[in-house]
Amino acid sequence: MRQSELFTRARREAPTDEVAKNAKLLIRAGFIHKEMAGVYSYLPLGLRVIRKLENLIRRAMLALPAQEVLLPALQSKESWLATGRWDKMTDLYKLRDESGREFALGPTHEEVVTPLVKNFLSSYQDLPCLPAGRPFAIFQFQTKFRMEPRVKSGLLRTREFLMKDLYSFHRDAAGLKLFYDEVINGYRAIFKTLGLESSTYLTLAGGGTFAEFSHEFQTLTAAGEDRILICAACHLAVNEEIKDKRPTCPGCAGELSPPQTSIETANIFDLGTNFSRAFNLTYRDENGARQPVLMACYGFGVSRLLGALAEIMADDRGLVWPPPVAPFTIHLLPLGPAAGRPAAAARELYEQLQKLGLETLWDDRPVSAGEKFAEADLIGIPYRVVISDRTLAVSPKVELTERQNSGEKRLVTVNELCAFLG
Amino acid sequence: MRQSELFTRARREAPTDEVAKNAKLLIRAGFIHKEMAGVYSYLPLGLRVIRKLENLIRRAMLALPAQEVLLPALQSKESWLATGRWDKMTDLYKLRDESGREFALGPTHEEVVTPLVKNFLSSYQDLPCLPAGRPFAIFQFQTKFRMEPRVKSGLLRTREFLMKDLYSFHRDAAGLKLFYDEVINGYRAIFKTLGLESSTYLTLAGGGTFAEFSHEFQTLTAAGEDRILICAACHLAVNEEIKDKRPTCPGCAGELSPPQTSIETANIFDLGTNFSRAFNLTYRDENGARQPVLMACYGFGVSRLLGALAEIMADDRGLVWPPPVAPFTIHLLPLGPAAGRPAAAARELYEQLQKLGLETLWDDRPVSAGEKFAEADLIGIPYRVVISDRTLAVSPKVELTERQNSGEKRLVTVNELCAFLG
Repeated sequence: MRQSELFTRARREAPTDEVAKNAKLLIRAGFIHKEMAGVYSYLPLGLRVIRKLENLIRRAMLALPAQEVLLPALQSKESWLATGRWDKMTDLYKLRDESGREFALGPTHEEVVTPLVKNFLSSYQDLPCLPAGRPFAIFQFQTKFRMEPRVKSGLLRTREFLMKDLYSFHRDAAGLKLFYDEVINGYRAIFKTLGLESSTYLTLAGGGTFAEFSHEFQTLTAAGEDRILICAACHLAVNEEIKDKRPTCPGCAGELSPPQTSIETANIFDLGTNFSRAFNLTYRDENGARQPVLMACYGFGVSRLLGALAEIMADDRGLVWPPPVAPFTIHLLPLGPAAGRPAAAARELYEQLQKLGLETLWDDRPVSAGEKFAEADLIGIPYRVVISDRTLAVSPKVELTERQNSGEKRLVTVNELCAFLG
Repeated sequence: MRQSELFTRARREAPTDEVAKNAKLLIRAGFIHKEMAGVYSYLPLGLRVIRKLENLIRRAMLALPAQEVLLPALQSKESWLATGRWDKMTDLYKLRDESGREFALGPTHEEVVTPLVKNFLSSYQDLPCLPAGRPFAIFQFQTKFRMEPRVKSGLLRTREFLMKDLYSFHRDAAGLKLFYDEVINGYRAIFKTLGLESSTYLTLAGGGTFAEFSHEFQTLTAAGEDRILICAACHLAVNEEIKDKRPTCPGCAGELSPPQTSIETANIFDLGTNFSRAFNLTYRDENGARQPVLMACYGFGVSRLLGALAEIMADDRGLVWPPPVAPFTIHLLPLGPAAGRPAAAARELYEQLQKLGLETLWDDRPVSAGEKFAEADLIGIPYRVVISDRTLAVSPKVELTERQNSGEKRLVTVNELCAFLG
């Protein structure tokens, strides 16, 4: 894409109405726009990252396997009354239609997915009997709503947010446990792809109203709102909220670190039969008897992850994106006048990179080298390719810099560049 | 995909709480699920069609060019007060947060996009000066909400729906007109791809509060809620609502047909300076003077299009999908026992089709031939490939049937099949 065609542009100054580093940087670089407290728009650069995060997570879900659906945001009050959460969940947005009938605006989808599945489940043959048999799980990417009183953390806590939620259905605890562990492995692989594996901990946490415990993935960042106690030996953690109940490592019973600040990037709840009992979701066992279905749910905050990556990966010059989810792979910066030799070489290289399928943002704007460099630093595309009279002087070469690493500059030929990135 | 792994299955009976053909068929075939009146879930088969419709429309938008964003559903009351629509728009859902502050739940996004663009527009150089210069337009795919009292038309009229909305920004009427016509051409190409070009009419309609006229794309169907008067010579139409004002064809001034029932599948509004004045969205002209920006908006109902395709294309055996947006391209039906020769041949062919990138639903379930045929008819995948002892008897052949056309059966070899579909 030509940068001159991008309607957003970097701001020189950070917004004054944000305190969170992720929001300041993402707004300055033109990735997001603040509509009001806790509500953001995703602009072209930000949406590109969101879509890549979604695709990364989608591949992991399909591999489980799980099937993708899209459930509604408008949810029936009756379903929320059936689970007792209409009154209990204080951060639930409620609205009314013209006849005064009330609806919930979904912060989560157990109240939708359980009655939905009831339509399609009849006998034990429909239920997963892992490892043999057919796993049965449903996921979606959806916009969710939550009445948040505290919204000072940018994308880390918002009133409207993008989430992946997965729901699995089982006939017994053993099958549930197998699937639960598969999802943990899938989540781990996602964090690894993002370069967050060393700072992200599978964390034992409170189970809320559903169970004694749940699992969270907590990623270390000073901007987080949680505190976790870490076991250095197992790379496991315990949420501070249950440290009295679980003062040692859940893996090796070893000692835990003092509390460290982190953000919950994903969570897993064993829902037991809480929801299946509320909606009478049963299966018929081998003897024809009705049994309640076991359920678990698995969340992954997509827009929160965008914020967490900005918060954690950025340096003092701006954003730094892991290559698999960067808005573009290459930032192409020709220096000098539009009629100059670097500009012509950049045009040629851009076409070559397009043919190779390498996503390139080409800064074709008539602005100074300093402005191009500063904006490129702020946007944080992984590979910067500079073409100037100087790089073309020796032989037709370009200058390659990796945003993520030391920032060391290398002069390479176009063929070397394509071979390195292709 | 193996059909045994699909959690949905076709119902023998149509749902009793739906009157619309599109809802009855889409629910029976497992494409959608009714949550409550006017609110539906998209199940795996339905979501596959939705995503293909989105990608078809997205390519047309990017080619304009327009840039993709994602705007929020929660919108500030202040913005809706600024345009006077907080009180005027009677079908606007409103909700409150914990402090009693009110929000709108977006049925459209002029109130969001106009202030957003204001952040990035400063001088006339930022505005489109078509044909030279840089068009400036923003689009999104978004879930929208509208308080609908009448919801008896299935996906044709819902309280929560998926839409593509595009907004363009111009310095003068000539630039706006050029872009407006580009969008009309893009929309025409989409209807052509879907096989709806002959039944879809560019229709002059009332402009509401914005202008004297607007344009709609109206697709003929008895299930529609609009009535249009058609010019046979121009393939143009006039919405019955303005027939007194425009009794002849807007193209050739020729005679119009009696009213015919249709559904509005897309619309285009010249917004003039209505919204730019409300938010003081101006540009600085060559003389440094502030001028209001001209705007237009362009809607395309994605979930409505899913319903319209079901309504219009279906025959008495079930759904019929146009190949470019079908949930799968091929429905592979081996007949006979799981250990039989057809089952083994189907497994081999399935792997071959996967390698060729041909999306295939493989009915590997242990059900009767009759049940497989009936369900395949209902689901409506374009190409049916049957493998039976009979088709394998002469030489290794399969039976190919096109769902959309006469249903004529042809015996072809696997190589002929792959060459035909590949």
